Amino acid sequence: MADEASLHLIETQVQTETVYDGNFLEVRRDVVRLPNGRSSQREYVVHPGAVVVIPLLDDGRVLMERQYRYPVGMIMTEFPAGKLDPGEDPFDCARRELLEETGYTASQWAYAGHLHLAIAYSTEIIHIFFAKGLIQGRQQLDSDEFLDVITLPVEELVQQCREGQVTDAKTLTCTLWLQNVLSGAWQVDWRDVNA
Amino acid sequence: MADEASLHLIETQVQTETVYDGNFLEVRRDVVRLPNGRSSQREYVVHPGAVVVIPLLDDGRVLMERQYRYPVGMIMTEFPAGKLDPGEDPFDCARRELLEETGYTASQWAYAGHLHLAIAYSTEIIHIFFAKGLIQGRQQLDSDEFLDVITLPVEELVQQCREGQVTDAKTLTCTLWLQNVLSGAWQVDWRDVNA
Repeated sequence: MADEASLHLIETQVQTETVYDGNFLEVRRDVVRLPNGRSSQREYVVHPGAVVVIPLLDDGRVLMERQYRYPVGMIMTEFPAGKLDPGEDPFDCARRELLEETGYTASQWAYAGHLHLAIAYSTEIIHIFFAKGLIQGRQQLDSDEFLDVITLPVEELVQQCREGQVTDAKTLTCTLWLQNVLSGAWQVDWRDVNA
Repeated sequence: MADEASLHLIETQVQTETVYDGNFLEVRRDVVRLPNGRSSQREYVVHPGAVVVIPLLDDGRVLMERQYRYPVGMIMTEFPAGKLDPGEDPFDCARRELLEETGYTASQWAYAGHLHLAIAYSTEIIHIFFAKGLIQGRQQLDSDEFLDVITLPVEELVQQCREGQVTDAKTLTCTLWLQNVLSGAWQVDWRDVNA
């Protein structure tokens, strides 16, 4: 990234400070040196990273969740997702979150790619996985976690993206992946996994 | 949203407090009542909302930006975007940001829809616009703002999404819109605008 051709864009860290350390969010404020030599500040959320899973059912539907998201004050339709535990491998996290939130295990998995969620003010990266060969088991939600598991035909998901019923950025990004993988335009590498 | 069928998911505000008020980020910590009657906390960034523009050039390429994003430590390829000023209409903001960041004005605009960027910890909504009939003028960057304007064939953008070179969630969401509008699967309503 720091090739000669990009030096006119790069900011470098001069100083870093944690300005808020809550139960859930850590916020840092850094002093940076701009490409023109001047100083500025950057404030951002430090995030451990996360995963999202696109679970394909045998009947061609996808497995999704409806969950109230307090910051936006709405029930959102989302693909299953969750934060990495400290030191956790993204794939282990994907299997864990799928099981905990939906009760499903999957016998085939594919890594798609990753996204950066809120590049102006968060370090968050989300790893995107596909899962198929799904077998229903029992949901393992925390006692203070509330969500509905739903299934949706892919065409209906795409329609809901179009109509503004699905507006979650990670889920919209997953729909881009889903559409292109299902059309054959993008390939992913499926692997058998012991459920 | 608060229909009977959804009451088992909804959280309600008990108390709200600004826990960090920086130059750029405001962080709030609320006490909420969970659907089971217990209490919990929610921490989140309060955001004024934003716009992103998908500018279609007459030769079939799209206008994009390369910008260093400090929180993720990388130069990102993005569609032009920016925050709403207080009280600003999203469409006015879209025209302003396109002009300031790229120097272009557009004679035709279409509103696509909106996304919610980071629903676990931010109120941010981003309104998505298409622009065409583009005419190049002069970029109006702040003296401490650094970005390169580039043009890209749509197929190359899609390929870069596939290959992990484009990972910004709002830009990936715009690519979903772009792909479906260009294929004719999704329609948008173009309007002539005085540039």
